[in-house]
This record gives sequence, structure tokens and C-alpha cells, in this order.
Amino acid sequence: MKKIILLRHGQSQWNLENRFTGWTDVPLTAAGEEEARTAGRLIQQAGLQPGYFFTSYLRRAIHTLQIAAAEMQRDWVPVIKDWHLNERHYGALQGLNKAETAQKYGEEQVHQWRRSFAELPPLLTPDDPRYPGNDPRYATLTADELPLAESLQDTIARVRCCWEEVIVPRLASTDTVLIAAHGNSLRGLAMMLLHLTATDVVSLEIPTGKPWVFTTDDRLRVTAEEYL
Amino acid sequence: MKKIILLRHGQSQWNLENRFTGWTDVPLTAAGEEEARTAGRLIQQAGLQPGYFFTSYLRRAIHTLQIAAAEMQRDWVPVIKDWHLNERHYGALQGLNKAETAQKYGEEQVHQWRRSFAELPPLLTPDDPRYPGNDPRYATLTADELPLAESLQDTIARVRCCWEEVIVPRLASTDTVLIAAHGNSLRGLAMMLLHLTATDVVSLEIPTGKPWVFTTDDRLRVTAEEYL
Repeated sequence: MKKIILLRHGQSQWNLENRFTGWTDVPLTAAGEEEARTAGRLIQQAGLQPGYFFTSYLRRAIHTLQIAAAEMQRDWVPVIKDWHLNERHYGALQGLNKAETAQKYGEEQVHQWRRSFAELPPLLTPDDPRYPGNDPRYATLTADELPLAESLQDTIARVRCCWEEVIVPRLASTDTVLIAAHGNSLRGLAMMLLHLTATDVVSLEIPTGKPWVFTTDDRLRVTAEEYL
Repeated sequence: MKKIILLRHGQSQWNLENRFTGWTDVPLTAAGEEEARTAGRLIQQAGLQPGYFFTSYLRRAIHTLQIAAAEMQRDWVPVIKDWHLNERHYGALQGLNKAETAQKYGEEQVHQWRRSFAELPPLLTPDDPRYPGNDPRYATLTADELPLAESLQDTIARVRCCWEEVIVPRLASTDTVLIAAHGNSLRGLAMMLLHLTATDVVSLEIPTGKPWVFTTDDRLRVTAEEYL
């Protein structure tokens, strides 16, 4: 039996300002830090003891994990940071607030970008400071790994790489793992674990700061799931 | 050319209470957290960009690293946690304050334990709650890796394993590393880097929270060292 815990980071500065964040590396707010503490406490109270932690390259997820781990007194557990767990890249929308975006592109178009499985938001150009190729943390990525923008489908495809190549192998040596990440990367993990359709996944809303615990058999087939 | 940065954690709760800490997992004080922030700022201002971080299994070192990394805006850099970088294990002295210890064992004996290279402090017994074999984080260690107490020499011998097997291989793929650890484990690294004698190393005092930067050639021979 295995336990896989998904944890969506708490409130960030740009959630508060209602802006498209994507790969922009904004910090948690004090409220977001408090959500992380509560999550750590709930995981500990449930008697769950992750042997591996996974997170993205973005500080709102990394700090959520660090704060929760401290609360669980498991600071010493290995942490694997992987850009494949990053939030969906929102391309040229990153940094715009939702009102600005609606004004620029129309309500209907914005709704479609946010709710479609395969549609791409407007692309960045490689000379844009927001292009990940201009950020040293992504220096080891190949040109076709560096997004100009992503559909939800693109995000889920790269999350699948991390699941298969990074997380599943560690589940051979530990019974419990915790993945602290983002709304859309966690949708990808939930899609794989629960065999959701594209239609299911676009309407799946994962709450922030609430540990979502999947129980599986040893072949990683889900037998139960619950929010703590 | 390589840069190796050693950082001793700042004030912990038991430094403040003047107790033998060793492998006891005490937290930083607010002053210790502030030392870590200052260290991170100094490293960033010096233009140093570590590509790997190393730390121990003890939260006072882990938190020092996390706080410094956040200050450097390098939260995303991989962190390797290794028990070989832990503080010297002080055996049955752990938890006693310096005055209690002097009363129990005599000033002269205590001085010798703290200043000798090869002498062991009083051993724990395996049924002692302080024995690391009773702590799940050390569950993968073999019986002869689990200390009942350590001399400075023992500590340095295991730090050498981490240096040779964990740190040096990463220096092939990055030019700069940061190691956030403890007074005695850092003495071990300094001994190797500077070819110190046992006499040199027992009198070496490494200040807390001050980044100590070694510049080496590509064969890791030190050409310069300075505190930031």
C-alpha cells in the first residue's frame, strides 16, 4: 500500500493581485505561509510520514513544502525539485491581471484559454524577459522543452515525465510521498491517478493548502482518496 | 576555477542555553535566522551563484541554508542533505549544559573532551533515547555508522566520505557550491582543503553565519580563502 499526497501551494502575492502567474517566481503571502503550516500539521496528525518530497522550481511551492516539512518535523527528508512540476506557462498573459486581460482579448477568449484543454494562450517571443530561456535556472533545458506558452495538455504531458521517471521510481523505496506544486501540474497528477478525461480535468478544482491523500495498491492503482 | 563556500549555522536554542547539542535537532533562534539572511545577502552581493547546496540532517543547518538560499533568490537550486555533515556526536554529554558537565566530570576533563582530536566523550548506551539508532531518520545507517559518541577525528573521517563521494563529483558539473553545516563538520572540510594538522584543527574557530569562501583550481587545490 502506498500513500501519495498532493498539496497545492497557498496564496501567493499574485493570487492576491489576481494576475496570471505561470512561471513567474512570486512569493507566498503571510496567509499562504499559514496555509502551509496548517497543511503540515494535518499531514502529521494523520500519521503520514513521507520518505520523499517533490516540488517545482518556483518558490511559492518550494516554501510551501519547507514550511509544511518543518511543521511535520521532517526537514531532513530528501527534496527533489523538478521544473516539470511547475505551473502551466501562461505565455504572454503572465503578469497581466484578469481585468486587463479581459479588456485586451475579450471575456470570451479569456474564458476559453482558462477552460480549454488544448488551446494555447498568446505566445511569448524568445526576446521577451519572461521567456524561460532567459532565466539561468532553465539553462539545462533543450529548446523544445522551453515553453513560449502552454496549453493544459502541454503541462500535463511534461508532468507525466516527472511522474514516470522521478516519482514512481522513489515509490519503490518509500511508502509515502508528498508533492507540493501548482493547480495545473497537480491536475495532471490527479488525471493520471484517477484516469480522468480531458473534460473532467478542466473542471477539476483543487483547493489550496489542503493535503489530498491518495491510497494505492503496490501497483499504484488508487483504492481511496480524501482531503485532510 | 572553483568556489567552495562553507557556512556555519547561526545561533540555535541550545547555543543560547549553553548546552552540548551534537545530533540533537534544536531550532535556530530569531538571531540565528537573521545571521542566515545576512549570509545569503553577502553571498549574493559577492556575485557567487552556487549550483549545488549541501547540508546536514539537522534543522539548524537546513534552515540556515533555506533562509540564505531565499535571500540569494536561489531556492530552486538542488539541495543534498547528508547525515555525514552532521555536528560531532557528543554522546552522553548531549543535553547537559556546560556548567552541569563541569560539575559532573570536572573542568579539566571537559576541556580535554572539547579540545582533543582523538578523545571520545562518554558513550551513550543503545537504549538511550539520544542514541541515533532510535531515530527513524537514521534508519538506513549500518550499526557501525551509528555513533554512541564521536571524537573530532571520527567526525572528520565521516565528513571526508561526504566530501569525496558526494561533493567532489558535483564540482565536475558546477563551479560553485555552498555547504551549510556545523562547527566540527566544517572543521573537517577546512582540514582537507587547507591540509591542516590535528593541532591546527582543534584550535580552528569558525565563526557562525559568516560565509568562508575557498577559491581552488580545477584540481581543487586552494589558491585563496576569505570570509565575506
